[in-house]
Amino acid sequence: MKRTRLENTPCPTARALDLIGDWWTLLIVRDAMRGMTRFSEFQRSLGAAKNILSTRLKALVAEEILRVEPASDGSAYQDYVLTDKGIALQPILVALGQWGSEYLFADGEPCTRLVDVKNRQPLRKIELRAQDGRLLESQDITAVIPDA
Amino acid sequence: MKRTRLENTPCPTARALDLIGDWWTLLIVRDAMRGMTRFSEFQRSLGAAKNILSTRLKALVAEEILRVEPASDGSAYQDYVLTDKGIALQPILVALGQWGSEYLFADGEPCTRLVDVKNRQPLRKIELRAQDGRLLESQDITAVIPDA
Repeated sequence: MKRTRLENTPCPTARALDLIGDWWTLLIVRDAMRGMTRFSEFQRSLGAAKNILSTRLKALVAEEILRVEPASDGSAYQDYVLTDKGIALQPILVALGQWGSEYLFADGEPCTRLVDVKNRQPLRKIELRAQDGRLLESQDITAVIPDA
Repeated sequence: MKRTRLENTPCPTARALDLIGDWWTLLIVRDAMRGMTRFSEFQRSLGAAKNILSTRLKALVAEEILRVEPASDGSAYQDYVLTDKGIALQPILVALGQWGSEYLFADGEPCTRLVDVKNRQPLRKIELRAQDGRLLESQDITAVIPDA
């Protein structure tokens, strides 16, 4: 399936997938949210070849999901830091994690959990709500597609 | 980057991405949520070659995200219908769409919107909350990784 046609689609889900719909992109963002900033940290976490990871990071910087900063410790290294656009990906990562932990783990299987820093309790499950606050199920939601 | 190592990772986000982290998977699920059930409908929507789409649909059935049913109109066709596991992907699609519409569209550019069926208003933006209901920002969330 070709990808380029999605760049101009009116569907924001498709356009988002066109940009970040490769598993490595969101795993780099996940690691950045866990505090990783260095090339070597991403490499160790993702088990990626240097040239491939380098291409991935450059793409994320070009898309303004990561930005490059001088190392916070004053060394010659670079830090890769999430931009606001990158931080805004968090609900996607949380939604993926909640679905994964519900459907892809056996009972009792060790599973990374996202908790709130203060109470160390797992996050509340994401809810979809209408503007007036009503909880929405799948059948309560529809897509309004603009005229071509 | 290899993918197979993610199947056994304790991180549910990574495991979810291993399964659905290709853009076509979630676009098929998106179309199924919009009511498409037929091979020809998915093909027209996604512009995919028959053999490729066939492989994708088989994979989604094998993963129990879609199930195959006899056509609802009594014809010889098959319907592809979302399972509960597939319907549960909706928060991921909504999160992708909200991020996409916020960051990937110019002002005034035509954009598909998800609305609630009753009031035809856009969904409320997804919020991340603690068990006790507190609204959480990125820095309020941390990952607890199980011991290896």
